[in-house]
This record gives sequence, C-alpha cells and structure tokens, in this order.
Amino acid sequence: MRKMFDEGVLERYRNLTRDVEERMINLHPIQSGGRAGDYPGVVQAVLRFVDGYSVCDFCLKGRLDLIESPPLCDFHRDIAAFLGMDEARLFPGCRQAQYAAFHALVKPDDTIIVDSLAHYSTYLSAERVGARIVEVSHSGYPEYDLFIDAYAERIEEVKKETGKWPALAFLTHVDYNYGNVFDAKSVGEVIHDYGVPFVLNGAYTIGRMPVSGKELGADVMTASLHKSFASPAPSGLLLANEGYSDVIFRRSSIRGPWSGRNFENKEIETLGCTLPGCVAIGVMAAFPYVVERVKHWDEEVKKARYFIEQLERIDGIKQLGQRPHRHDLVHFESKSFFEVAQKHPRKGFFLYDELKARGVIGVQPGLSKSFKVSTYGKTWEQIKIAAEAFIEVAQKYNIPTH
Amino acid sequence: MRKMFDEGVLERYRNLTRDVEERMINLHPIQSGGRAGDYPGVVQAVLRFVDGYSVCDFCLKGRLDLIESPPLCDFHRDIAAFLGMDEARLFPGCRQAQYAAFHALVKPDDTIIVDSLAHYSTYLSAERVGARIVEVSHSGYPEYDLFIDAYAERIEEVKKETGKWPALAFLTHVDYNYGNVFDAKSVGEVIHDYGVPFVLNGAYTIGRMPVSGKELGADVMTASLHKSFASPAPSGLLLANEGYSDVIFRRSSIRGPWSGRNFENKEIETLGCTLPGCVAIGVMAAFPYVVERVKHWDEEVKKARYFIEQLERIDGIKQLGQRPHRHDLVHFESKSFFEVAQKHPRKGFFLYDELKARGVIGVQPGLSKSFKVSTYGKTWEQIKIAAEAFIEVAQKYNIPTH
Repeated sequence: MRKMFDEGVLERYRNLTRDVEERMINLHPIQSGGRAGDYPGVVQAVLRFVDGYSVCDFCLKGRLDLIESPPLCDFHRDIAAFLGMDEARLFPGCRQAQYAAFHALVKPDDTIIVDSLAHYSTYLSAERVGARIVEVSHSGYPEYDLFIDAYAERIEEVKKETGKWPALAFLTHVDYNYGNVFDAKSVGEVIHDYGVPFVLNGAYTIGRMPVSGKELGADVMTASLHKSFASPAPSGLLLANEGYSDVIFRRSSIRGPWSGRNFENKEIETLGCTLPGCVAIGVMAAFPYVVERVKHWDEEVKKARYFIEQLERIDGIKQLGQRPHRHDLVHFESKSFFEVAQKHPRKGFFLYDELKARGVIGVQPGLSKSFKVSTYGKTWEQIKIAAEAFIEVAQKYNIPTH
Repeated sequence: MRKMFDEGVLERYRNLTRDVEERMINLHPIQSGGRAGDYPGVVQAVLRFVDGYSVCDFCLKGRLDLIESPPLCDFHRDIAAFLGMDEARLFPGCRQAQYAAFHALVKPDDTIIVDSLAHYSTYLSAERVGARIVEVSHSGYPEYDLFIDAYAERIEEVKKETGKWPALAFLTHVDYNYGNVFDAKSVGEVIHDYGVPFVLNGAYTIGRMPVSGKELGADVMTASLHKSFASPAPSGLLLANEGYSDVIFRRSSIRGPWSGRNFENKEIETLGCTLPGCVAIGVMAAFPYVVERVKHWDEEVKKARYFIEQLERIDGIKQLGQRPHRHDLVHFESKSFFEVAQKHPRKGFFLYDELKARGVIGVQPGLSKSFKVSTYGKTWEQIKIAAEAFIEVAQKYNIPTH
C-alpha cells in the first residue's frame, strides 16, 4: 500500500556504514571472492568513475563494448581471450547473463536440461523464458555429487518425449550449496555428441581458478564478477563462441512504424548497453589482480582443506559435499551446535553471537544445524584464528573435540 | 574470433583515470543528473560498500528489498512513497525496469502504444518481448512535440485492427533528444478511459523534478537513477501500483521436477535479486540529496532558458523542441558551426576542440550540425562561462553574434 512521504525518514540514509570488514574475519560464502576493497587499484578506479555515466565521456558508437577510452573495447576482447572464448559482454550480474542466453536460445515450451544443484537464478531464468526444465539428479546426502553421466540419458528422454532435442544443457561448474566441482569437460563432450548447446555457469569458478571455455568445451559461459572477480556489484559476464554469439548478441531489427526509427547497432539481449559507470571500471581494474590470483588456486584449496580438517575435530561437525574437497566454499553439517541451540536462550543465533565475539563473522545469523562458509582469500593466520574460534565455541558448550 | 591471451595487455587496466570532471565544465546531456561525485555522502557510502556482496551481511530473507540493515527494506518503501506509488524495486537500469514491466504485462504478438520520441531502449524492450508497436506521432521539426491527443485514436485503432486492446500505453515523460516535457496527467486520463495500463518513463524526470505517480495517473513508472538520481551506475527503479504490482512482482512457482526445489519468495522479473553492493548503497545515500534538489527545479529551468537565450545570440544556432523550454536537456541546431566544419581540417571535431580549449566539454566529439547539452546542476557562473565559450568560438570563426 502507498505510504505518505515524510522527510524525517531521510535520516536513515545519511550515514550508511559498514564496519564488519575492517574488524572481523569474514567467512561469508557469497562475499569472499568479490572483495573489491582488498585491491587498492579497484577502489581508486571506482572512486574516479563514481558518477553515473562516467565511462561515456568518449562514447562515439553508442555501445559499451565499443568504447575505446576507458578501454572497454579492449577489455571485452581481452577478457574473452583470458577465458578462452570468442565473444564477451558485461552484464549487471550472472543471473542477467544466464537469462539473456536462455532468452536467445530457448523458445517458450522448449525443454532445457539443468543440473539439480543449480543456483536458484537458473531456475528463475528458465521460468522467466517459459522453458520446461529437466534435472540431472545428484547423489544426495552427504556428498551431493552430480550424476554427470546422466546428461546423455536426459537428453535422449527429452527427444523421445517431446520429439525435439533440448534447447540447451546447463551445468553449474561449482554449486553454491556444497562447493562441489564438476567435470565440465566430460559433460561438454557428452552434450556435444548430441549437438545441443552447452551453457556453463562459472559463477564460483571464473575469477577464482583458471578457467578456459575452450578446454572445457563450453559454447556459452556466464560469470558473476561481484561474486568471484573482486568486483563491485552488480557485475556479470556472458561469453559465447562462434555459432552461438551471432544469436545471443544479435542486433535490433525493430523499426518504428510511423517514425521509421531503427537501432541496428544495438544488441537486443543487452537492451543496447548494460553496465556503464563505476562498476564496469571496477571490473576492468580488478582484471590484473584476478589474472594473478587464479594462479594461486591450489593454495586456496589447501586452506579450505585445512579448515575442514580443523572443524571436523569437533564432534558432530561434518563437511558435506565431495571429499576431498576442491573448493573454498564449504558446507558443514553441525548436529552438536544444533543441540546447543535447542537449549540456548538465543536459539540458533548463539553460534553467530559466539563467533562474532571472537572476531569471526559470515555464518548466517540464526543457523546452527548446518552452515556455509568460504575461506577464499584469507591468510593462513586468519584461517587458523577462525578455525580456533569454532573450536573454542564447541569447548565452551562442552562439545567434545579431538 | 578467439584471441590468445597475453598478460602484457593488463597494463592498460592498471591506472584507469578520468580527470575531465575536475578540470572542466561538463555539459554532457546524459551525465548531468547522475553526478554522484558531487555528493560526498554518496562517495563515502560507495567506498564503504565497494565489496561485491557488501549489502548482504545481514540478508536473512533472501531478497534485496527485505534486507533491514543497511535499510534497503525501508528504502524500497520510502522511495515508493516519495514518488507517490505503491511498490518499488531497484533494477540495474531503467531499461531493465522497462523490460521487466513489458515482460510481465505483454504477451508476444500483443500490441503496445509508445510515443515516437521514446528512448531506444523502449523499442528494444518491446522487441525483446516480441511486442508489436504502434507509435504516437510528433510534430516534427523544429518543436518535435508529441500529439498526446492521439493516444485515444491509436488505442481504438489497435482494438479495431486486432480485436484486442493494447497491452499497455507508454509515455516518455521527457524525451532524450529534445528535452520536451509532456503532459503525463492528460495522457494518463485518456489511457485510463480505456482501462489500458499506463507506463510512464521518468528517466529524465525522477530525481530532477518533483514527480508523483499518483498525481500523474501512472500505473507503472520507471526511472534511471544513474541518469537523474545522483547515483552510480548501473541503477534504475521500477514502480507499480496495486492492480499491477502483483503481476509485475509476482513470485516464482517453478519446481524442480526431480529435486522438488522451489523458490516461492523470489520474484521472477527481478530474477530473485537485482542490485546488491555499492550501487544500491549509492542510491540510498543519494536519496536525501535528491529530495532536496528537486525542490529547486524551477531554478534549473531558468538556467537552461538563460543558456538557450545566450546561444541563440549566435547566427544559425536555434534551440529545437518546445518553446519556452521546460527542461535542462537542450538540443541545438547549429548550421553556422556546421558550415565552419566543412572547411575545417578537423571537420566536425573543431567544435569539441575549441570548447575543450575553453574548459567546456560534453558536446559529442565530431558533432557540429546539431548537438545536445544539459545545464543541470551547474552554477550560474559555470553556465555563464560555458555560454561565453560558445560565443567566443562563433566569433573566432566570424559567425555573427548579436
């Protein structure tokens, strides 16, 4: 319902602060890979281009990916090359990139194959284009491993049931619940045998680990830059190879029936231009840092494994997902903390409170039965302090540790 | 075509600078209303939340508009109240907001009515949803005034030709080419007589002048925050009133056929969550400044009129669009500058060069036959210096002034 506007409410917008990053070790799973503030070059670039249409000073061709200064045109080419794909476009998020790819490749009532661990935005993108989905199943508790061999079966079933091949097959390279890493290359080979387009969601891989679309056999890739590319939000990337890029990045052909106006240089799926201003600049400024950091992916996996090993010293704590784990996103089942929560006056919030009192945040407030964290980008010292905090909490509540 | 990646290219992303704002009077028409850098509170807030998912520290309900700290939940309610509408959602741009409204309200092959001065992104949104468009015509050179009475005729024609009422009627409150201000209230009354939804694009009004959707009779409104709300990019707003908000902000009902997964709290048209991070924060921080600045709209119109009066002292310079002008966006025809350009070694770029040498930028490099500028947010002194620069250029090339 419509409210009357009262200027008194404006006080709450006058001094918006966030101090957790400065004082705490933050293990928030969706935040760790997008910490732009860790990179001074990104912060400076954002500041310089904080005005709305700041990147448009010298826009001569009416499209973001054609602007030469700042070097957005170069960037689009360079990021595609870095990720082993033909064409790239910036988007205001991975979900918008997924939707654009679906919208270009899928007609309403087409069927698409998705992995059953996909991000919710994949399901919503399918729903928004009106596609029917068929899921590739997983092994369930405790590993939640995807049955990647089932892609072939699902594709054949769709053909048998509907008379048509699926419009695309989709794989989430690393899932957002368990941090499982799937063998995209094998999936790609299976899918390609059927000539079905292979869309790979690199939201939790691109910008964290080395990724080459060419090596993995992806036809289309999506990335979340504010999730994994040290970039401010909202930022994402849509990449496509020849054979698909023409469709996905097709240009406008609408014409005003009275005016005759047309816009032949504009691309339909980007609605003409997608990501002006400080966010596009932040992504470009993050690029050199990201190229460097993906070289150290092995070390990040080592940190995650050490953290898992430490937390599993607590009775009732168990890492879910693939073992050994191969990603910094980790989901723990925590029966013993849940038992404490049942009797605690703060219920599940006790865990958040206790960790915060020890300088560690990122576990969702209220959760105690299971929780997700990410160790990405933390120093070894921070990892050790964080693990120790969990162990201290366990000991405080008389949960055995060994 | 795919390029090999060479790390040498990264040098170009290491020190991205933009110094025009500090040294120059910038009349760039799309930049003047989105200068976040003019407001220290906005810059500070952006800096504090520069990390990707920075606003998600305390996201408990899985949706941006439900986050209580920072006060995004309040903001969604307060901005709707400020603009006299029932419901609001942040989007990564006005074009995405337009597309979402169209996608929710229009089925492929439906017809929609649009004004023939609409932004190109309106045409692209229509094309992306597969709508047929019918245009409301304008008076052409030199005023380009919309025949707003023609909405009724067009609506009746559509009904007669297709047997169906148009799915919506769309008006661009202020057009981006001539800065003409249209009588939205009258258009709304006509459209409402037919029960057709009225979508009003406030890209050049919301954040610059007082706007009340209730007073104007809009059912749906869109806004560009990086264009007119002193906000970083990409940022936009979609507003809807009861009767339409349920459709536009409808929730997901997709269900994984194998997994049973569903996402009933997520809204389809936002793909679940639209604008995390520093941009959402920048918009909130800009809100108090914007509430104040729209009170001074009359003064902005006076500045634009003064600027027009000064430039029309130059022979061959003529303001296009409505007279007297009622907006800061001004389009000039400039026959005399075009004649100079024909013989100038730099061709049309001479005008950009000459103005820049006098500390004035914002005229698109290369244009001399006609050009757009905006005087919004400039001080009277800057307006006078900028006008004087144009006159000096005219005099240098022996164009009579009076």
